[in-house]
Amino acid sequence: MMGNRLLIVLLSFVSFAQNDPSIAGFSADAARRQKELESRFDSHINRANLQQWLKQFSAKPHHLGSPGSKEVAEAAAGLFRSWGFETEIETLYPLFPTPKTRLLEMTAPARFTAKLTEPAVDGDATSAQTPGVLPPYHAYSIDGDVTGALVYVNYGLPADYEKLAEMGIDVKGKIVIARYGASWRGIKPKVAAEHGATACIIYSDPRDDGYFQGDPYPAGGWRNRDSAQRGSVMDMPTYPGDPLTPGVGATKDARRPPYRQGATLTKIPVLPISWGDAEPLLRALTGPVAPPEWRGGLPFTYHVGPGPASVHLNLEFNWDLAPLYNVVARLKGSDLADQWIIRGNHHDGWVFGASDPLSGAVALLEEARAVSVLAKSGWRPRRTMIYCLWDGEEPALLGSTEWAEFHAAGLQKHAAVYINSDSTGRGFFFAGASHTLETFINQVSRDVTDPQTKVSVQERLRAVRTLRGDKDPAEIPVGALGSGSDYTPFIQHLGIASINFGFGGETASAGVYHSKYDSYDHFVKFEDPDFQYVFATVQAGGRMMLRMANADYLPFRFDSFSRTVSAYAMEVQKLADDLRMRTATHNERVRSRAYELAADPRRTYVAPKAQDPVPHLNFAPLLNAAGRLKESSGAFSKLSLANLTPAAARELDEIMIQSERKLLTDAGLPRRPWYRHQIYAPGYYTGYGVKTLPGVREAIEERNWTEAEQQMKILAGVLDAFASQVDKAAAVVKGGAR
Amino acid sequence: MMGNRLLIVLLSFVSFAQNDPSIAGFSADAARRQKELESRFDSHINRANLQQWLKQFSAKPHHLGSPGSKEVAEAAAGLFRSWGFETEIETLYPLFPTPKTRLLEMTAPARFTAKLTEPAVDGDATSAQTPGVLPPYHAYSIDGDVTGALVYVNYGLPADYEKLAEMGIDVKGKIVIARYGASWRGIKPKVAAEHGATACIIYSDPRDDGYFQGDPYPAGGWRNRDSAQRGSVMDMPTYPGDPLTPGVGATKDARRPPYRQGATLTKIPVLPISWGDAEPLLRALTGPVAPPEWRGGLPFTYHVGPGPASVHLNLEFNWDLAPLYNVVARLKGSDLADQWIIRGNHHDGWVFGASDPLSGAVALLEEARAVSVLAKSGWRPRRTMIYCLWDGEEPALLGSTEWAEFHAAGLQKHAAVYINSDSTGRGFFFAGASHTLETFINQVSRDVTDPQTKVSVQERLRAVRTLRGDKDPAEIPVGALGSGSDYTPFIQHLGIASINFGFGGETASAGVYHSKYDSYDHFVKFEDPDFQYVFATVQAGGRMMLRMANADYLPFRFDSFSRTVSAYAMEVQKLADDLRMRTATHNERVRSRAYELAADPRRTYVAPKAQDPVPHLNFAPLLNAAGRLKESSGAFSKLSLANLTPAAARELDEIMIQSERKLLTDAGLPRRPWYRHQIYAPGYYTGYGVKTLPGVREAIEERNWTEAEQQMKILAGVLDAFASQVDKAAAVVKGGAR
Repeated sequence: MMGNRLLIVLLSFVSFAQNDPSIAGFSADAARRQKELESRFDSHINRANLQQWLKQFSAKPHHLGSPGSKEVAEAAAGLFRSWGFETEIETLYPLFPTPKTRLLEMTAPARFTAKLTEPAVDGDATSAQTPGVLPPYHAYSIDGDVTGALVYVNYGLPADYEKLAEMGIDVKGKIVIARYGASWRGIKPKVAAEHGATACIIYSDPRDDGYFQGDPYPAGGWRNRDSAQRGSVMDMPTYPGDPLTPGVGATKDARRPPYRQGATLTKIPVLPISWGDAEPLLRALTGPVAPPEWRGGLPFTYHVGPGPASVHLNLEFNWDLAPLYNVVARLKGSDLADQWIIRGNHHDGWVFGASDPLSGAVALLEEARAVSVLAKSGWRPRRTMIYCLWDGEEPALLGSTEWAEFHAAGLQKHAAVYINSDSTGRGFFFAGASHTLETFINQVSRDVTDPQTKVSVQERLRAVRTLRGDKDPAEIPVGALGSGSDYTPFIQHLGIASINFGFGGETASAGVYHSKYDSYDHFVKFEDPDFQYVFATVQAGGRMMLRMANADYLPFRFDSFSRTVSAYAMEVQKLADDLRMRTATHNERVRSRAYELAADPRRTYVAPKAQDPVPHLNFAPLLNAAGRLKESSGAFSKLSLANLTPAAARELDEIMIQSERKLLTDAGLPRRPWYRHQIYAPGYYTGYGVKTLPGVREAIEERNWTEAEQQMKILAGVLDAFASQVDKAAAVVKGGAR
Repeated sequence: MMGNRLLIVLLSFVSFAQNDPSIAGFSADAARRQKELESRFDSHINRANLQQWLKQFSAKPHHLGSPGSKEVAEAAAGLFRSWGFETEIETLYPLFPTPKTRLLEMTAPARFTAKLTEPAVDGDATSAQTPGVLPPYHAYSIDGDVTGALVYVNYGLPADYEKLAEMGIDVKGKIVIARYGASWRGIKPKVAAEHGATACIIYSDPRDDGYFQGDPYPAGGWRNRDSAQRGSVMDMPTYPGDPLTPGVGATKDARRPPYRQGATLTKIPVLPISWGDAEPLLRALTGPVAPPEWRGGLPFTYHVGPGPASVHLNLEFNWDLAPLYNVVARLKGSDLADQWIIRGNHHDGWVFGASDPLSGAVALLEEARAVSVLAKSGWRPRRTMIYCLWDGEEPALLGSTEWAEFHAAGLQKHAAVYINSDSTGRGFFFAGASHTLETFINQVSRDVTDPQTKVSVQERLRAVRTLRGDKDPAEIPVGALGSGSDYTPFIQHLGIASINFGFGGETASAGVYHSKYDSYDHFVKFEDPDFQYVFATVQAGGRMMLRMANADYLPFRFDSFSRTVSAYAMEVQKLADDLRMRTATHNERVRSRAYELAADPRRTYVAPKAQDPVPHLNFAPLLNAAGRLKESSGAFSKLSLANLTPAAARELDEIMIQSERKLLTDAGLPRRPWYRHQIYAPGYYTGYGVKTLPGVREAIEERNWTEAEQQMKILAGVLDAFASQVDKAAAVVKGGAR
């Protein structure tokens, strides 16, 4: 029982925001009814289901193409059907390579053969299983059999190769070893190949997700010496999904080139290894001592090489098509059935996948079940609710991408929003989204209670942000979406407003990420022992779906989007200004020989060269467009949406739905037309990490001034189109009051 | 041979500064003659002497009280005499404890006995010696025999104990283990005792000076698994020197209390150990995982404890007086013999002491020899040059402190400047000094050529600073003096303007610091293989001495001092302002429960309490005094010193000499009256690290507002006295033109 004094503090802390009863898209009366509905929804959530399904579905391997994947899909489809959803399993056939040969050995200065396996560990029941387990490998690495001197390249990003060049080291013809982290893994072999390396090894340094962070599994939750991180290395920043069917669904009879023509396969072979396997290789390197920030947690001095360590890597894969089982369950809306509210989470895992993806998948299932209980009691959503469990997310967002490509026309017409989850666990609420949904998300996080502290999950998040020094306005800013889960095809290819959400930050999930040890036993020890946060995920997901489905009008806000775009416009200006100053400083240092004079003459040092100065760019088109958008959205926010006629509300919905589409261009981004969204994209050299205003931003980063100004105009065009859409919405509101 | 293009760049880089022929204190003519003298001086420097003496003096242990120390002192005295210096060995008798019993064992959860020895290593000739070698220990630790649960306290600073308190951990009655770094070592047992610990172990984490930094000795230059850092743990921020004779010389018949009454002995026993000995202890700790910034380079997860590791520490020392041999060699000045220019470096080492102190000591010897060659050729310094080699620096700056205390009256009357060196090696010029000497030091660094790059050592230093982003004015700012070498009694106790200088930054000297492996073999492999930088140290030291000795008038500048003091005054204001804002932010976080809400409820967490708000302090006395000083020194800089009569020049010299004395107070700093300088002091909780305007700054840091305002007035008083001295100098100049 809580002491009195604390209780008073607690009550005084329940701020204005938390008492605010309003819900965007609802009249005051409707909001009251909606809150009652949500209370009933909460009362139907059953923690036992979460625990039981997580255990059941993680009992055996369920990666794409495995018997386990099919069983999970069929079991989930059976559940959806039993709850009254119109349910289908939609089967598609993407290319999915699995390993045939994996050999990594050091041939000099000593012989060593990498184990490349994850053994059973005490207290982890599934870890003893071997049949059907995909061993550590990288999906969409090409085949290769190469030998060469080894070079340590830190995280393997472009800046790391610049540093190597300063040390006089060229990786051409050599095999590079990079550590996991700082970028999506697929960037590492891409950059290595650009620099002429013949192969790439990626290992998990204990500094980053191993013993430096916490006790290794099974004593603690963190990565142990034999655990390796599987994963895709496809060039997803170019396009995700089946390499052989870009832009169209990978149906059985889709036209496919020979697999080697898949544009997104790696150029060089790649293999993930554990630090146990990496240690002898790294220890055998000599050459320059690695720069301080390159050094990891292994107990020796990190050297860069090249050699004397020489390694032999032989990789061969089965280049087969795999059957992919997407589960799609519909609950038809009443009066607005042609507006679709879509919810998704993947069901395939790399091995047992308890956290990734089942923690999110079972939350989605329980959410659907609780919705079905409401539906059985007479309630009906106004809009159509669609629950999806995707297969093949791990290799390349295959299930969602191929489905979205296959159903593109219908989705672009009907989909109002796509709401995604993936791994979830103990900790703090997080959400990335289209910025038209910032208010919507804040109202959801305001209305879900944190299981551990009993304040709202928003208040808890605000506490973390406060300690970090973030200055939050009334609404907590929502992050932009890059890539890394199934929302990508919806937002970036089809222009459907999207959300990705969950909980985390107090788990050790990174320590078993994409390993055999992402198991039920690990989950209940180190991630969410009481399923409290899976439960909270059901509550948050359920509110998002029920509010979207029931709203008087769709709860999109143009002002938060406009504010965010203006901030991004400032950022790219600052990016150019900073780059200009940095370049000038750099060139002055080259001129004054500061680099050479400061360098240790006993070490090889190749001073960097002068760079072309950064010109002033014409930001006017972008700033004018952002200004117009601000005016339009400002005018719209002043309108009352309280008393619209049903026809006007419906028309407004259609305009809202189509607004995100206006942010696409047909041509897409330079050199990657599949990515059509001009505000959000995964970075070409970050992979998962988002680049906002990507056309302009990446052109500046790559010092391509002509392209930057071209992209500025294109971007201004989509912002203008968006502003026109806002004006259209305003006209409807003005003309459509009851 | 250098390419033409590079040569042009090189020539264009020889900037204005380097072509500036002026030397402060000299007329244009005198400066020309001085430069010729310096060229002759350079031509007499013999690298072979440096190499030979370094080898000879590092051949056996030469710590205070050892036969080796006496031999080095006698050999050096013989050399000085042979070069024509009036030379004495002045013997004093400070307390110097040496180890009798050293036992460290873990008693639970497993038994382990620490080795506490440094074995012989391949390729290091002296490392096989054992007779006479002082084993790893901490001088002035008290005796003690204690057993207790172990707690890891990171660097053992006050902030680390605050963090422990947040984790709910109290060290009372426990034994703490701290890693070396982030403060002078003597702070760690002091703070541990303040928090109730019963003993303190200090180990060298491989993150800080071991394999993380570079290959361990002998493969590379860095600390190996068995090497431990000896050193003093006396409470030197209270007073250095003999604990039993504060303020007076430790002569044979000085009055001494029983040794246990020495105020600067530690309160609890302390022992330094290697990481090899620390590893089993740290591995055996459980309890909370250490915060990320506490984790070192050992290959396991760092836990804080307490326990289950329990350790037993037994330490006993011989509490004897040791004979201390200071070598003092004089070359009498001609017309200004009662103005003393003093140069010093210590000669005692913890073991073989090749780098520390012999690299600096042999440079001083060769400098004196080259000066003696000039003297034999008819040149004579105007002022008296005094060369000193101190004994007993390592335990507590004993030789310099006791000598300075013993000769206090004469020194305060006659000493113009004290110029110190200590370890020196490959890399970059560094200097800390009284800020009246900033121009003087810049003109010396302008006129010494870097042996590796052939630009001036100032240009090379500027290159490093440029890459660090430092904005340098025409003169490179000189650092303030804290403690850590023999200048301390001269500047901080006697108010003699001082300089500490050397070269470094491209050596691995930290890796063998205060260990048996600080040897000749290490030095020639990893510190200064060709004695190039010991040579440059001779050049820099020689220029400083010859310029001071020959100048028409002493080259002190009041404007650089005034500018620096104004900057410090801004700093302490900002310190108070930042503390006020931080306190307000903190209190708001306490009020809003942000600390508790953001914390992981599955871990013990004691949220910090609200703090008293920081009031606005009255900075007016300090600002007014700084303003007056600025006016006075500004007026003085406008005067021409070109044509002073000899009497006026002499009077000006006396004023210059006494100006630094004006910065002392009789009462000294609060709670440590030995430290009388009001501008520079070693920090009470940093040890070596300087605190400028220490009375005011430390009162603010310790949140003692009353004391801060009292100290502000005292500080204003010394600045006023200094300004009056400047005015006096101006009056002399105005009245004394020929």
